[in-house]
Amino acid sequence: MNPLNETHAPALRSWVVSANAADTDFPIQNLPLGVFRRRGRNEPFRCGVAIGDQIVDLAAASERGVFSGDAARAVQAAAGDSLNAFMALGPAAWSALRLALSRALREGAAAQKLLEPCLSAQASAEYTLPARIGDYTDFYTGIHHATTVGKLFRPDNPLLPNYKWVPIGYHGRTSSIVVSGTPVRRPLGQTKGSDDTPLFGPSQRLDYELELGFLIGPGNALGEPIDIEQAEQHLFGVTLFNDWSARDIQPWEYQPLGPFLSKNFGSTLSPWVVTMEALAPFRAPLVRPAGDPEPLPYLNGAEDRARGALDINLEVWLQTATMREAGQPAVRLTRGNAKEAAYWTPAQLIAHHSSGGCNLQPGDLFGSGTLSGSGPDQAGSMLELSQGGKQPITLPNGETRSFLADGDTLTLRGMCEREDARRIGFGLCSATVMPAPAVRA
Amino acid sequence: MNPLNETHAPALRSWVVSANAADTDFPIQNLPLGVFRRRGRNEPFRCGVAIGDQIVDLAAASERGVFSGDAARAVQAAAGDSLNAFMALGPAAWSALRLALSRALREGAAAQKLLEPCLSAQASAEYTLPARIGDYTDFYTGIHHATTVGKLFRPDNPLLPNYKWVPIGYHGRTSSIVVSGTPVRRPLGQTKGSDDTPLFGPSQRLDYELELGFLIGPGNALGEPIDIEQAEQHLFGVTLFNDWSARDIQPWEYQPLGPFLSKNFGSTLSPWVVTMEALAPFRAPLVRPAGDPEPLPYLNGAEDRARGALDINLEVWLQTATMREAGQPAVRLTRGNAKEAAYWTPAQLIAHHSSGGCNLQPGDLFGSGTLSGSGPDQAGSMLELSQGGKQPITLPNGETRSFLADGDTLTLRGMCEREDARRIGFGLCSATVMPAPAVRA
Repeated sequence: MNPLNETHAPALRSWVVSANAADTDFPIQNLPLGVFRRRGRNEPFRCGVAIGDQIVDLAAASERGVFSGDAARAVQAAAGDSLNAFMALGPAAWSALRLALSRALREGAAAQKLLEPCLSAQASAEYTLPARIGDYTDFYTGIHHATTVGKLFRPDNPLLPNYKWVPIGYHGRTSSIVVSGTPVRRPLGQTKGSDDTPLFGPSQRLDYELELGFLIGPGNALGEPIDIEQAEQHLFGVTLFNDWSARDIQPWEYQPLGPFLSKNFGSTLSPWVVTMEALAPFRAPLVRPAGDPEPLPYLNGAEDRARGALDINLEVWLQTATMREAGQPAVRLTRGNAKEAAYWTPAQLIAHHSSGGCNLQPGDLFGSGTLSGSGPDQAGSMLELSQGGKQPITLPNGETRSFLADGDTLTLRGMCEREDARRIGFGLCSATVMPAPAVRA
Repeated sequence: MNPLNETHAPALRSWVVSANAADTDFPIQNLPLGVFRRRGRNEPFRCGVAIGDQIVDLAAASERGVFSGDAARAVQAAAGDSLNAFMALGPAAWSALRLALSRALREGAAAQKLLEPCLSAQASAEYTLPARIGDYTDFYTGIHHATTVGKLFRPDNPLLPNYKWVPIGYHGRTSSIVVSGTPVRRPLGQTKGSDDTPLFGPSQRLDYELELGFLIGPGNALGEPIDIEQAEQHLFGVTLFNDWSARDIQPWEYQPLGPFLSKNFGSTLSPWVVTMEALAPFRAPLVRPAGDPEPLPYLNGAEDRARGALDINLEVWLQTATMREAGQPAVRLTRGNAKEAAYWTPAQLIAHHSSGGCNLQPGDLFGSGTLSGSGPDQAGSMLELSQGGKQPITLPNGETRSFLADGDTLTLRGMCEREDARRIGFGLCSATVMPAPAVRA
């Protein structure tokens, strides 16, 4: 795992003035990567790094000779329209570019003159997915979510016997993963009717899921598992991820092979990938309740136990169409922390996923699963907030919600906050719900 | 669906003499597409069409001016190292190339002189996947398989209530799909132990699954379902597919989100894609047992009911290492037919998959699910043949098998045979089982 180094120093300030604001998600200690272009110009997407309210165009910076040595070699891999090739390089290359960027962006840096023309305002940028995602796997690491949802289905036996042994996961759909800002259309689907014939129509229980997205760096060859002690070297970074879910389609379709159409109509990824090195100050021990089993050896790494968890505060915000029209701001639905929600670390997910020989590839995405905390105000889904739809929540303007309505804008936020480190954030993972298509007669 | 035309005439013969042999899989009426190169030359892979024991190099044929008009335009999309761009073109382009090839390969064709230098022997070819598979979905259309396997888990309630309403499917792993001939390594994994602690080690119940693979053509935009009446226009063709399965890992991991590591260590696809037009003589009505429900409207197409099923004979062959060393040929384990095994048609799978808005893309792969017949000698997996491992089968040389052993070579075959049509085949879908990697201490 990444040690702290000069790029993490809390006192560092940037000549990009907006990066020094106390509440920015993107101070010089963060430097997340994404893929952007200037809106309305129909130009190719390209790789960039967020700094304050600006974006460093990496190809432009490279052309102007901002980088040398290892950083110059590393940035060559970020010259295209996705981060996959850069993700494939591994931690030494990632770190070389981060160090070079940190030095070039600091107050007083000689590189300022070279770099300034390479900045683009986030306010006029549009984004695409940071990687071509080859495969996407959604895990189920949120033990409070698993317990609460399990109770709705199996009151006496909420957590299945495999949960504390197997990092439960399943394969998801990559084609329908879209970047934050893309509207998500309410799905049609089959639901169990009151008589013997199922219904087919718009989902009536559309939900969000508050997740982290983990993007894979160098992968492994087919048939060659990744050891837990090396697993995190295969992890490039972390995003926010909303795994939209149709709670009425899911129970009817999911036996015996798992969720399918209830999930694959759309998933939203935030545009900026916060690197594992940026997260170094925000690691935490993996805490398990007393009496829980030791992980099996292939999931049990000494360093991972000591600081494999992620200390990331997470929030969910909702703005309904009525609120938007009245000029009312979004309301916060929940607030939690990843390290209190997740039963398994990212390294354990990588070791498990590859343990049978499955090959991981640069740009693969893992979802953490819904990261609900233990408290009722820490729920990572409407299903939990409304107790399975039985207890609608009331919003400040008097509207109620059991599930999401058309026109609702749902936004995930994440931030790392510790007294001894500079606060960093993840930007927004946001989308508005569009009405379902017409049903075939 | 494709009508019969001059390319299907049973009397057609080719100047490629091997294509006229009664037992060839690749007569001039077939013309399946794949991606190949000459073995040992380290040259780029390229698109080709199988004819007898030869392959037509499409880019070479295009360069030599074999094609004109629509066919010449269509073949441009097959100039690269995958069929994705050609798959995206749709039925009119596919049909134009088929007609041109059929005419150019017929006995007496003027194009013979131009085409002969574009032939490559299959005996000295190697293959890669016919498409870059963006997403892979495995369905569960084999109702006899679902019933038999369901009985092993739930003797009183083998078929779940959703089965006859929902074409059950789940997302699979694309990175570990390999082309026929690639060895498959036995996976490590967690299994339920006899005490409270699970075991971790090589799977002891490695199995095959006899499936068809459906490759998607044009696809749909996110949020825009495909109507059942148009669904088959989005289907490019059919392959053989072996969805290797670890039957001891599966029951411990699969609740509540479905199979994961028990499946994603490897899947084998045959190299040749038999097009829907080639299959036109081998379509059949979808037969449902009396009293079964009508499909919901979005799954109920008039033409699909009339001839949406596929009349494809399927076989599984096993050669153990001992048999191979003794020079003994493979033994046939099972024989069945897709139209008697599958409860849903490919068009229904496409309509269902897109019904919630999920976008399909050219080169996406659907697995049919295990296509077992109703009889005990028609089982599409060892799990069924050995009755859950309780009744090992005895091979002609006296060896027994409940599941697969290291060194076993498992081969799927498929062929379409009707009195009024020329027999066509699918080639081989074959792989040998390699030992598991070492377990971490």
